[in-house]
Amino acid sequence: MGKGGMSQGEKEDGEEVNMAAWLLGVNTLKIQPFELPSLGPYDVLVRMKAVGICGSDVHYLKTLRCADFVVKEPMVIGHECAGVIEKVGSEVKTLVPGDRVALVPGDRVDLEPGISCWRCDHCKGGRYNLCPEMKFFATPPVHGSLANQTYVFKLPDNVSLEEGAMCEPLSVGVHACRRANIGPETNVLIMGAGPIGLVTMLGARAFGAPRIVIVDVDDYRLSVAKELGADNIVKVSTNLQDIAEEVEKIDKAMGTGIDVSFDCAGFNKTMSTALSATRAGGKVCLVGMGHHEMTVPLTPAAAREVDVVGVFRYKNTWPLCLEFLRSGKIDIKPLVTHRFGFSQKEVEEAFETSARGGTAIKVMFNL
Amino acid sequence: MGKGGMSQGEKEDGEEVNMAAWLLGVNTLKIQPFELPSLGPYDVLVRMKAVGICGSDVHYLKTLRCADFVVKEPMVIGHECAGVIEKVGSEVKTLVPGDRVALVPGDRVDLEPGISCWRCDHCKGGRYNLCPEMKFFATPPVHGSLANQTYVFKLPDNVSLEEGAMCEPLSVGVHACRRANIGPETNVLIMGAGPIGLVTMLGARAFGAPRIVIVDVDDYRLSVAKELGADNIVKVSTNLQDIAEEVEKIDKAMGTGIDVSFDCAGFNKTMSTALSATRAGGKVCLVGMGHHEMTVPLTPAAAREVDVVGVFRYKNTWPLCLEFLRSGKIDIKPLVTHRFGFSQKEVEEAFETSARGGTAIKVMFNL
Amino acid sequence: MGKGGMSQGEKEDGEEVNMAAWLLGVNTLKIQPFELPSLGPYDVLVRMKAVGICGSDVHYLKTLRCADFVVKEPMVIGHECAGVIEKVGSEVKTLVPGDRVALVPGDRVDLEPGISCWRCDHCKGGRYNLCPEMKFFATPPVHGSLANQTYVFKLPDNVSLEEGAMCEPLSVGVHACRRANIGPETNVLIMGAGPIGLVTMLGARAFGAPRIVIVDVDDYRLSVAKELGADNIVKVSTNLQDIAEEVEKIDKAMGTGIDVSFDCAGFNKTMSTALSATRAGGKVCLVGMGHHEMTVPLTPAAAREVDVVGVFRYKNTWPLCLEFLRSGKIDIKPLVTHRFGFSQKEVEEAFETSARGGTAIKVMFNL
Amino acid sequence: MGKGGMSQGEKEDGEEVNMAAWLLGVNTLKIQPFELPSLGPYDVLVRMKAVGICGSDVHYLKTLRCADFVVKEPMVIGHECAGVIEKVGSEVKTLVPGDRVALVPGDRVDLEPGISCWRCDHCKGGRYNLCPEMKFFATPPVHGSLANQTYVFKLPDNVSLEEGAMCEPLSVGVHACRRANIGPETNVLIMGAGPIGLVTMLGARAFGAPRIVIVDVDDYRLSVAKELGADNIVKVSTNLQDIAEEVEKIDKAMGTGIDVSFDCAGFNKTMSTALSATRAGGKVCLVGMGHHEMTVPLTPAAAREVDVVGVFRYKNTWPLCLEFLRSGKIDIKPLVTHRFGFSQKEVEEAFETSARGGTAIKVMFNL
Repeated sequence: MGKGGMSQGEKEDGEEVNMAAWLLGVNTLKIQPFELPSLGPYDVLVRMKAVGICGSDVHYLKTLRCADFVVKEPMVIGHECAGVIEKVGSEVKTLVPGDRVALVPGDRVDLEPGISCWRCDHCKGGRYNLCPEMKFFATPPVHGSLANQTYVFKLPDNVSLEEGAMCEPLSVGVHACRRANIGPETNVLIMGAGPIGLVTMLGARAFGAPRIVIVDVDDYRLSVAKELGADNIVKVSTNLQDIAEEVEKIDKAMGTGIDVSFDCAGFNKTMSTALSATRAGGKVCLVGMGHHEMTVPLTPAAAREVDVVGVFRYKNTWPLCLEFLRSGKIDIKPLVTHRFGFSQKEVEEAFETSARGGTAIKVMFNL
Repeated sequence: MGKGGMSQGEKEDGEEVNMAAWLLGVNTLKIQPFELPSLGPYDVLVRMKAVGICGSDVHYLKTLRCADFVVKEPMVIGHECAGVIEKVGSEVKTLVPGDRVALVPGDRVDLEPGISCWRCDHCKGGRYNLCPEMKFFATPPVHGSLANQTYVFKLPDNVSLEEGAMCEPLSVGVHACRRANIGPETNVLIMGAGPIGLVTMLGARAFGAPRIVIVDVDDYRLSVAKELGADNIVKVSTNLQDIAEEVEKIDKAMGTGIDVSFDCAGFNKTMSTALSATRAGGKVCLVGMGHHEMTVPLTPAAAREVDVVGVFRYKNTWPLCLEFLRSGKIDIKPLVTHRFGFSQKEVEEAFETSARGGTAIKVMFNL
Repeated sequence: MGKGGMSQGEKEDGEEVNMAAWLLGVNTLKIQPFELPSLGPYDVLVRMKAVGICGSDVHYLKTLRCADFVVKEPMVIGHECAGVIEKVGSEVKTLVPGDRVALVPGDRVDLEPGISCWRCDHCKGGRYNLCPEMKFFATPPVHGSLANQTYVFKLPDNVSLEEGAMCEPLSVGVHACRRANIGPETNVLIMGAGPIGLVTMLGARAFGAPRIVIVDVDDYRLSVAKELGADNIVKVSTNLQDIAEEVEKIDKAMGTGIDVSFDCAGFNKTMSTALSATRAGGKVCLVGMGHHEMTVPLTPAAAREVDVVGVFRYKNTWPLCLEFLRSGKIDIKPLVTHRFGFSQKEVEEAFETSARGGTAIKVMFNL
Repeated sequence: MGKGGMSQGEKEDGEEVNMAAWLLGVNTLKIQPFELPSLGPYDVLVRMKAVGICGSDVHYLKTLRCADFVVKEPMVIGHECAGVIEKVGSEVKTLVPGDRVALVPGDRVDLEPGISCWRCDHCKGGRYNLCPEMKFFATPPVHGSLANQTYVFKLPDNVSLEEGAMCEPLSVGVHACRRANIGPETNVLIMGAGPIGLVTMLGARAFGAPRIVIVDVDDYRLSVAKELGADNIVKVSTNLQDIAEEVEKIDKAMGTGIDVSFDCAGFNKTMSTALSATRAGGKVCLVGMGHHEMTVPLTPAAAREVDVVGVFRYKNTWPLCLEFLRSGKIDIKPLVTHRFGFSQKEVEEAFETSARGGTAIKVMFNL
């Protein structure tokens, strides 16, 4: 490997070569060159410094698919990233080389007019994350990140590059909180204390939720959630028969009506629990991507006007995430539990660590 | 039966006796006296003139239950009603004897402070239909209608008593349209062309929906829906395997994105179809009360931010229903297909007719 | 003038020259060539067939200014327009030559990425009409319409070119109704029965407003409003002392609480009347552009939570306007009261007619 | 005065007499008996322990009027109050004697069905503060507080009686923040650093406003605001000509777009400044009650879709205020700057202190 770390090898003539982690088949990830498109007038070139491993990355590696997306050709892995600007296009006025930045995953820079079409109803109506023409990093068939980008946000001085990379998973939690309209009068239940459950909890707290109860099957995860600020935790089983009893335990742990539940796991059981535990007129937000079909008590929930709210990624979240990090309303640092370099061996080890779970919450590459 | 028609027999001393249809057991409905509480200062006494049979009434008759409600003691059947005021309490200023009125089903007049508590968060927040202390006609353990009532609305001159009684089922459609935020930019799919599907269709049209497609398994119902104003109809099977193909047919029948789908049937298949057919960012409103549990593709719907919206009865709907009927934005009359008097034999026949379905949409008693 | 009508003269070599109405100084309007930019891949060339005169056009002609905008260099007048497509760019898939279309006023075709920036918070949040980089036809310093355009919408078969041109003023009414959230439960007061008052009335009706009262100082305008569907009309003076008495007359004419008032005139008196007449919790929407400062009873209105809602042009309105026209929910044709050709003399006459008011509502050029 | 403090004198037979501060004429306030109605089954008797002086109380004392309300008969002054429960009615289940409570100002206990009618559209729609039949403490012709009450909320253990009394003014700020939809993405400008400006600032912070700039003419008030958490302060003049320059200073002090401005003073100048300083698409919330008429640049504000939002008292605010105080999200204690007992002399002195302003923010009686 050359001097450049993750994204830079070295060509024969001394010029650096841009290296990336390519997913080539099931459990086959190789560091290989990634040829950058040329820098457009509105583009910036970012040298990646911190890249997190997302659950979807692991899914792709293990199965070549995630939800309805299927990998059909080699794809670069990684879309939670931050780095330092190396070059800026001729028309870029707001950023300069040396700026530390976080990046919204999006399409490669050579495609215009950007990440969404701005011509469809969704784009014009303010929900551009639903644009059918939207391209996205690390979602086949589009190549992954580790490339330069126009959707970059300068990091405040007191926000680290790792925290910058964490803006991507945090955005999921923040978007979910926005869709569920969390505020200082919303008591919140969170099903699942994995990375998504935790960022949703941090988001809900930053939006002002006065009381948050979090539920999981794993003691370690629950202890992390408690440390990160959950008001109460409830350990549950994976047994469907236990729902009624567990709803009672959750009610007691909350001590007041549950206005919004986030299902951050996506199992029949977690969703059923959320639907049953939420008060009349409340909302259940389905964040976790589980089975295609779900068997859940939808009818009695609907008859109490408990609405089910979906989320798809995020929109306009980076500035808010950075403000939460800058102001200290969210401390995201404890979520990064493991760090790796970018050699072939370390990349494989990092993915293994992430896949194993256990004490690993977020696995991060430092480049 | 005495001179008084449905609700009035005759006591020995010549005073009329208030008669009502009592549900006494499975398939056992008897006309028996119903003793009225005394008239409070804010009450009015209404002589019933038109009472419709609701699907829930038939459910109760056949099984003594509907959704999660179970009949445990004798109960008066009937909650879609209109009549003429006979007496008014001492403090009633806005109504006089002889006024033709429609009634919001609610508790008996002798219970204060009315149909909901006005002390809980739901009441104070404008969603009094979710009040946990709410009493309701014809829902056990509260006795049914056919009694005097404080929640009465004077009928406009050009609105008949039968139309007045139809305000109750129409309210279900109107409340669903409000919750789904129907307007002139909302293209609407309706699953199920039964009474609830039809009132939802009429409501959606009155709220301005530019294009409505309605789906059913029954040719006759579809033809009624077409006559009542559906822009297009789609016949489907009850076969779960046909969903993908039927969604395609529905898409073609609509010719543009479906913004809101109403599931007015409540089967796994209708809900699955609705979730799949609705455009990203749209809503599926579950109006029909089906099985407790549903097996549906909730995950991919959530991942397109297709939200599921529940409805529970209605709130503040009578004035709007009456305005729709008065202005002619809704013509509800064609829904009343069968009429009966109120002898024991006719009551039994009426319920049989309603239960049989077929060409019977709404069965009405004229008293 | 050559064979081409309004927008086409003839060069020496037989090629047509694009002619336009240029505003050169106070009361000085000259038909002179307008050089078209070359056709980009996403552009279409539209031969204008119908162009309406807007009140702002007259303001510019008489004073070289309108609200805060000042004309500083020669400018083409006219932004309410429809026509027929002559050529389409290489990437245009949805339109073909011969299509009859209405146009959203916007910038000249040679500017990318379109009418707004799609990068600011307003654009990303669905309020692109507030984009600070937005360019607009006929608003200095941008040259006026009468040019080809990418923001074009095909007319339904039963919608005429004149109706197509009327989509622009109608959009003002439609956007105001959207911002004020008009629906079947909103009783509406409209101050001013000029063109903007009338399109707002037609919009409010199409959005379902059950009862509309319109107010003006002019009997003729009021009679037009009545014919176009106002439920009631109230004649008022220009005298500030009459407000209390006139509010009483308006209340009586409405017969129920006023939920939303539109001030389509923008005078101290009309706004004061609107603020006083609107029920607690209602809204006053200020559509008319009057004096910079207003002296109005804002404090007592605020103390009844009567909110003041502003409007700036429109966004995403053409498809809805065309649907309203296609379905017959709006009949805009009666608003076009005068028609002119496009010679120098006719253009001057047309503007004189529009400026005079009287029986002239909308003056239209047929090209 | 007897042993009983403010609200209790002593009758001949040793029974305490309930004493209150009666407003009898301009600048004439006398401590005289107030006869309590008898305790109804849902009532509680509260011995007042802390009562704050509101600006409106001072207005009434000096002029016998406030906004549109005029005092026409002797009235008890004081509506910001907290105390200890002495007796509870036979049906009261949730409170017991000895409970420390804060009270929503409302009507006397002998009027049913409570503070609002729960029958009008406003009540049914969740905006009961707009109910036309609403009675209110200390607003003529209803007698003031210092009486027992059903709208009482138990204080959390760590919230003092003075803080409980402060729930009333804090409710004004909290309701304003709710109406303006303040959250973690709303940058806030506050015009006026008096008591209402300060509680609005504390409310906005608790709702998550990331950046708050506060403006006043008085250095001392600004220094208090800064200490209480304003991100920046701007000193202004009372000169109308300075608006443009001051808007520039405010913009610089904010450093980003102003999403919501609260005018907590209600002068032409403060409102004009707020309307000009707020970004397109933002809101100005008029909290302060100033002159009946205002002369302000409403037209250009409306043309940028800057909406004006009114507030009338509050609704459902006590539980949220108590939660903010309990959790420490709001520290209201520094606002209480002066304390008095309840002798005739002290009452006069207390009102003088409050009227003088200067370093007095909130003047409180301890009973």
